[in-house]
Amino acid sequence: MSVPLVCIVGKSNSGKTTFLEKLLPELGRRGYRVAVVKHDSHGFDMDQPGKDTWRLRQAGAWRVAISSPQRFALIGPVEQELSLEELVARYLQDVDLVLTEGYKRSQQPKIELCRAARSEELICAPDELLAVISDLRFDLPCPQFDLDDVSGVADLLEARFLHQSATPLAGGRVILRVDGRPVPLKPYIQRMLAGAMRGLLGGLKDAQGQVVELYLEGEE
Amino acid sequence: MSVPLVCIVGKSNSGKTTFLEKLLPELGRRGYRVAVVKHDSHGFDMDQPGKDTWRLRQAGAWRVAISSPQRFALIGPVEQELSLEELVARYLQDVDLVLTEGYKRSQQPKIELCRAARSEELICAPDELLAVISDLRFDLPCPQFDLDDVSGVADLLEARFLHQSATPLAGGRVILRVDGRPVPLKPYIQRMLAGAMRGLLGGLKDAQGQVVELYLEGEE
Repeated sequence: MSVPLVCIVGKSNSGKTTFLEKLLPELGRRGYRVAVVKHDSHGFDMDQPGKDTWRLRQAGAWRVAISSPQRFALIGPVEQELSLEELVARYLQDVDLVLTEGYKRSQQPKIELCRAARSEELICAPDELLAVISDLRFDLPCPQFDLDDVSGVADLLEARFLHQSATPLAGGRVILRVDGRPVPLKPYIQRMLAGAMRGLLGGLKDAQGQVVELYLEGEE
Repeated sequence: MSVPLVCIVGKSNSGKTTFLEKLLPELGRRGYRVAVVKHDSHGFDMDQPGKDTWRLRQAGAWRVAISSPQRFALIGPVEQELSLEELVARYLQDVDLVLTEGYKRSQQPKIELCRAARSEELICAPDELLAVISDLRFDLPCPQFDLDDVSGVADLLEARFLHQSATPLAGGRVILRVDGRPVPLKPYIQRMLAGAMRGLLGGLKDAQGQVVELYLEGEE
């Protein structure tokens, strides 16, 4: 449906960040743009007390964005935790793949990290697992990789998620959001909307591109 | 066209952050959600060296998002600086008003802060100014407010930008983005697209709402 999403899970201190630190450059060398979503159940502080962005947040700004020629950042409160799918749909449409660090309760495909020095037991059920990265071997049907087998994991992600997304679905992928919430669409409705949008926009010469978004406000 | 946008400008150390710190709670009390965009020409570091988010960025993640039940943050590099309009269109559609700190070269309406202790000269031309906030008085046609006149400035913003946006444009506001770039639309094309989207989605019971977004990928 959307940008492919794979959760890198494992007990705390199982080496998720360390593995991602090796996997990200490998995916970058292969030409992919990857986002990482980190789940933090304890809350976090991204900016430092006393800095302007912190002062603006304290004063009640709903969003604080900071933009420079090199990068940008956005921070803000939520009324309830954003689901992973919502985060990706709203903020991460400009990448080829989203990996998470954590989110073990998500319904998305998971790769579990398990270091013998930390634990000898997996936290995921076998049928949730896309792969295991471990210095142990388990009796499981999914592929298993050594702790440093970055290229093996990158090959798997590429084969399963990235070659696919490089080939657009026939007729185009359609996402409909109403008041920010994605609305599930049956395949025939997707095809109908894709066809209608192409028909509507066909005459607009500036509307030729890979990704087309239409935003409509003030429906009665 | 989009969420209303007002730039709070002034020389460095003129008191922009300090004024925003007083204005934001006032707008909050009046029930508005406000985003602040801060321009930083020197680059910035939002996360701290050694932290997981920093490590993931160093490893080449195109976006790092961090999400908790209380808030979320998103950070990432850009190939070239995002324009203010692009930032708002992509990331700040869920607020009533966007204020900036800085962006004195923007084409958006501006409110200039000028403290006598810092400077007695304005940086904006008279015809760019929506208002001046100062302990000086200038020979200008726009409204002028004292440095602590937060409710006066909030009244002006409310009258000029917020009552308007509360009343949807007849027929709905339409934004078309192609590969992330907003495409300017003539009013008749806006009306046509709004009508067509309402027609297309009229039969979908889940598609009733104030804001409707359609996302289409993989155009041939």
